[in-house]
Amino acid sequence: MLELISEHGCYGGVQRFYRHQSTATGLPMRFSVFLPAQASAAQVPALFYLAGLTCTEETFVIKAGAQRVAAELGMILIAPDTSPRGAGVPGETDNWDLGVAAGFYLDATAAPWNTHYRMYSYLLELYELVIREFPVQANRIGITGHSMGGHGALVMALRNPDRFRSVSAFAPICAPSQCPWGIKAFSAYLGSDQQSWRQYDASALMQQMKTPFPGGILIDQGLSDQFFPDQLLPQAFKASCLHAQQSLTLRRHAGYDHGYYFISTFIEDHLRFHHKNLQADRK
Amino acid sequence: MLELISEHGCYGGVQRFYRHQSTATGLPMRFSVFLPAQASAAQVPALFYLAGLTCTEETFVIKAGAQRVAAELGMILIAPDTSPRGAGVPGETDNWDLGVAAGFYLDATAAPWNTHYRMYSYLLELYELVIREFPVQANRIGITGHSMGGHGALVMALRNPDRFRSVSAFAPICAPSQCPWGIKAFSAYLGSDQQSWRQYDASALMQQMKTPFPGGILIDQGLSDQFFPDQLLPQAFKASCLHAQQSLTLRRHAGYDHGYYFISTFIEDHLRFHHKNLQADRK
Repeated sequence: MLELISEHGCYGGVQRFYRHQSTATGLPMRFSVFLPAQASAAQVPALFYLAGLTCTEETFVIKAGAQRVAAELGMILIAPDTSPRGAGVPGETDNWDLGVAAGFYLDATAAPWNTHYRMYSYLLELYELVIREFPVQANRIGITGHSMGGHGALVMALRNPDRFRSVSAFAPICAPSQCPWGIKAFSAYLGSDQQSWRQYDASALMQQMKTPFPGGILIDQGLSDQFFPDQLLPQAFKASCLHAQQSLTLRRHAGYDHGYYFISTFIEDHLRFHHKNLQADRK
Repeated sequence: MLELISEHGCYGGVQRFYRHQSTATGLPMRFSVFLPAQASAAQVPALFYLAGLTCTEETFVIKAGAQRVAAELGMILIAPDTSPRGAGVPGETDNWDLGVAAGFYLDATAAPWNTHYRMYSYLLELYELVIREFPVQANRIGITGHSMGGHGALVMALRNPDRFRSVSAFAPICAPSQCPWGIKAFSAYLGSDQQSWRQYDASALMQQMKTPFPGGILIDQGLSDQFFPDQLLPQAFKASCLHAQQSLTLRRHAGYDHGYYFISTFIEDHLRFHHKNLQADRK
């Protein structure tokens, strides 16, 4: 059951917010959908956006200005929340980088997180729901994200290239097994066996990638980003792409920081990148 | 003394937030400035944006997506806060439509508001500061705003057409003397003498306007706006414009509400409207 929370006219289309009961997390989850005008007459491609630490399903929708370009291109935009809410794990709101709004898009295996913190499975559940409920062309779905959500986008695409045919990211956490944010989160959610961390580490996954994304991967990184390079480590992902013969466009931008002024500046390029890749995929 | 709080690369320019001590309000005030790349080499036109109830100097900057077009056109964007902060008036945070974040861009004359709630004078102070501190072409400054800020923009321009050469608004409170928000605010800030309200009522001011704005006035209004028409009364302003032979483009948009999804959809039209008017003014 999909519950419409609100809807707003936006660039000739409609920006909606939904709530639904998730099987994966066992809790009510929220997500947002932008439907361009084109979606009222035909199936159109779609782009998932995964947000970063402290964000919600609303952050991208308010701050990135992506609807303008999605309206032009005729793309549906889907933004999930960044963690379960109301799981009741002790201390889950004590840290901004662990627990609520910091789900890291993985399925926790360690107690007490493993009951509800199952965002990886949730995203696959949402993926199926979106195909079922909205006029999405199922073979034309891409994914992008920011910071923790950039990590999520890369991991989701690398593990599900049949589902996500195009991938990009803004200042992603490229090698969470090697950075403070990732080590803290993975230790709590997955436990101390670092072998199990590899399935959620884009740089490790890329090392073993058999078939490159034909349209390449696009990553934008600000050089005034307060978390660059220590938390983000794009050079680790770049090395893995080189190893796997995956074409990567890693753009470094002087003067841009980690926030949405950076994202809004380059979001148009990402939408056009995905649109082109997803068009090509149809041939 | 202008204190830079933060700055962020944005569309090739820079988004800044400032704090300064205001003579008009007797308190520290915040405002934001977007400087397009063009402003590092030359003086450029500027547009003031006045936000609505509950907003701050950050709301427009985060939500409207105006920097993209300002970067293209080479316009500086200035967004002040919506009231003094920290005035210490008893109960000033009890109502979302009176007191903090609800200054109504007027100079209060009634106690206890009249010491610090002097946003009309503050805007003129900020106007001078902006000309002094930033590469603004002083004869190419326009003003726009939303809801309470649309009221503010119309009033500032109608009373200072030599300063603000171009004016537009989103869902403005067009006749505050006649709507619940305005009656509540004006009664508190200005007292019961309704004659004194007229200087802050755009529809009353327009009745007496001698020289029309040559480029006309642009107003956008959503038809799914929860405050339309009772709080906004654009028809009253339209009647005054007719009386004063002021050209007015009042656009009504089906499906759009009172929020920033509406504003972001049409902000580009407003920036281009002002840019054209301000160009013409230079001839």
